[in-house]
Amino acid sequence: MNYAETLGAKAKAAEKAMRCASTEEKNNALREIAEALKQNTEEILAANETDLVEAEKNGMSAAMQDRLRLTEARIKDIASGVMDVIKLEDPIGAMDGGSLRPNGMRITKIRVPLGTIGIIFESRPNVTVDAAVLCLKAGNTVILRGGKEAYHSNKCLCEVMRAAVERSGLPADAVQFVDDTTREVTSQLMKCSDYLDVLIPRGGAGLIRAVKENATVPVIETGVGNCHVFIDETADPDMAVNIVDNGKTQRPSVCNAIESLLVHENIADKVLPLVKARLDAHNVEIRGCEKTASILGDCVVPVTEEDYATEFLDYIISVKVVKDIDEAISHISKYTTGHSECIVTNSLANAEKFRNEIDAAAVYVNVSTRFTDGGMFGLGAEIGISTQKLHARGPMGLRELTSMKYLIDGNGQIR
Amino acid sequence: MNYAETLGAKAKAAEKAMRCASTEEKNNALREIAEALKQNTEEILAANETDLVEAEKNGMSAAMQDRLRLTEARIKDIASGVMDVIKLEDPIGAMDGGSLRPNGMRITKIRVPLGTIGIIFESRPNVTVDAAVLCLKAGNTVILRGGKEAYHSNKCLCEVMRAAVERSGLPADAVQFVDDTTREVTSQLMKCSDYLDVLIPRGGAGLIRAVKENATVPVIETGVGNCHVFIDETADPDMAVNIVDNGKTQRPSVCNAIESLLVHENIADKVLPLVKARLDAHNVEIRGCEKTASILGDCVVPVTEEDYATEFLDYIISVKVVKDIDEAISHISKYTTGHSECIVTNSLANAEKFRNEIDAAAVYVNVSTRFTDGGMFGLGAEIGISTQKLHARGPMGLRELTSMKYLIDGNGQIR
Repeated sequence: MNYAETLGAKAKAAEKAMRCASTEEKNNALREIAEALKQNTEEILAANETDLVEAEKNGMSAAMQDRLRLTEARIKDIASGVMDVIKLEDPIGAMDGGSLRPNGMRITKIRVPLGTIGIIFESRPNVTVDAAVLCLKAGNTVILRGGKEAYHSNKCLCEVMRAAVERSGLPADAVQFVDDTTREVTSQLMKCSDYLDVLIPRGGAGLIRAVKENATVPVIETGVGNCHVFIDETADPDMAVNIVDNGKTQRPSVCNAIESLLVHENIADKVLPLVKARLDAHNVEIRGCEKTASILGDCVVPVTEEDYATEFLDYIISVKVVKDIDEAISHISKYTTGHSECIVTNSLANAEKFRNEIDAAAVYVNVSTRFTDGGMFGLGAEIGISTQKLHARGPMGLRELTSMKYLIDGNGQIR
Repeated sequence: MNYAETLGAKAKAAEKAMRCASTEEKNNALREIAEALKQNTEEILAANETDLVEAEKNGMSAAMQDRLRLTEARIKDIASGVMDVIKLEDPIGAMDGGSLRPNGMRITKIRVPLGTIGIIFESRPNVTVDAAVLCLKAGNTVILRGGKEAYHSNKCLCEVMRAAVERSGLPADAVQFVDDTTREVTSQLMKCSDYLDVLIPRGGAGLIRAVKENATVPVIETGVGNCHVFIDETADPDMAVNIVDNGKTQRPSVCNAIESLLVHENIADKVLPLVKARLDAHNVEIRGCEKTASILGDCVVPVTEEDYATEFLDYIISVKVVKDIDEAISHISKYTTGHSECIVTNSLANAEKFRNEIDAAAVYVNVSTRFTDGGMFGLGAEIGISTQKLHARGPMGLRELTSMKYLIDGNGQIR
């Protein structure tokens, strides 16, 4: 048994207790976690400080250091996020259909936990807690593998959570920390199919590709968003500019930000200068096609095929003038990562065409793509945004952390 | 581009037409297929004959040859199965929830096709048609890779279907045949993640393991069933014997047949001789624990750990006497493949305990495990039985061949 498998075996041993736990027992564990986070704030901040000193020494950028930093206020926010999950409806046990069959047997389809969920993440230490409590609330056990840069913070947060879960009467091993940041352990986790029911990578495109290519455990791909806005000829120019500006500049580093703008040629002369004027306020670099350059002038950097395929996550946008909605749809179909796509239009026919023909998790008509988010969609907290079509698509809330089973009751039916 | 990728690219090109096809258009394609199967019976039988001659030459068993054999009556049955799928409700476009958000944007969650589905199968040639029409009805394109032994039959059936789909006005490439039975192409398909949205292996444990270990395409595991019956101390002995006999002998070669029997020690003396008497009619070999042998005598073959873990698919059963339901549940939890598990009991408390603690796709109380089947569950036809927890669990019907997307409509909402 390798290291990942020993964690997996402990998780499996804790699974039955979690699977059979009542909503109240799970909520008690979450309440203990929220409480413990506040009571252990000093210890958590000390561990975080160790990571920050290391980060400073390694020359981590100020922005990245800020992502890594925990403060008393941030810990309070994390704890209050845990309390919010308590309020969410427990997905487990919900009836998802059923029928009385002609032979008198009764079939009931009910929601059950997935089992053991592995999460590999690169982001901020709050993910440790956010992800763990969602998994627990849905009756799962969880194995957390965070990034090296947040090692001490994550380890401390996990220890605090494990002790809290145990105090509540559920098994501490329902939450486990991968206390090893080498690549080898990541590989072990990916192959740990005897113990893990699903592996969710949360991080950059590189991590997700590596997991997808090497995992034998079922994977849910998350987060890569090469999102487009298409401004149709009938679009309201103000609305279009607002949606493009919001999608590009409100928070460019996130997956539901837009990376690419397509404009109908009949409205390009009018709308592109307005877009540029607004984006200029954030010094957005425009990488455009020839027509874009002919309208906007020398400030336009010539766009390449690679630009069209790139999730910039930065103040850069690719722009293409298209001759009609068909060209827009085929461009999007070629470059989409299946995350979020938007049309701004006043044509009912074109809105309907866009909805039907675009194959993505979220298809927007006259709304900013920035809304692709569990909270914004009303799912409560989210564990990530799936860009695959199997099991979950789009923001994944508690329900997406469950499976189902069939219960069949009868009085001796045979075939 | 390797061979699998060229098929994948053609499938992707056909995807939009399938995704946007109306129920009527898809049903027309299915009707053309059913018609074409009947009209091309002679040609199909000739191709099948080529496979049968080959099979005879290679010394294939009579039972296997029978599985491979098509007849006019069997082709009629296949065609009538296609007509049955026409009657099933189209899962595409169904609203799966939605809400009006506080900012006035409207979110609608609707069912959409998965996209392109790869199926690798080893079974009878009818699977070619059964699987294809289910995929088509759910708006998908499908790539079919059948076994070498049925090569000519499968190829002919695919050609007939492609021509029929094209006659109906949908693209022929919605159905594609992998015209290469080498292992290399199987590997190519498993890695074809740019084009395939899911890969479903249907066949023996070896095939499924190979796909699971090597695929980068999302996989749905199907069919391995190491199913148990536990006879609790309060069980009705006649009911128990009927359920064991039905599970073991009605059709031992299928995945929902039982492989293992657990008996409460307080009822073992009474029920085991009755079970044996019934199983003797089919010369079932009993591999039992020491207590089983002490009750049933010398006919019992000493059971091994490996026996407990084996899906015999034959007239063999492992038997263990247990001291209580807890021992039964922990034995099952150790050896289950998560397919179908059954308790025979008259205790409400034990029935509930078994339902809650057993982690399997189908959990039966006083009903034969042989009912784990799409038709028996009322789902219509099935494409296989999932033994994983992600996306689909248990019998997979049309709904399991779909994904969903979020449609968001508004009038300029931004964050």
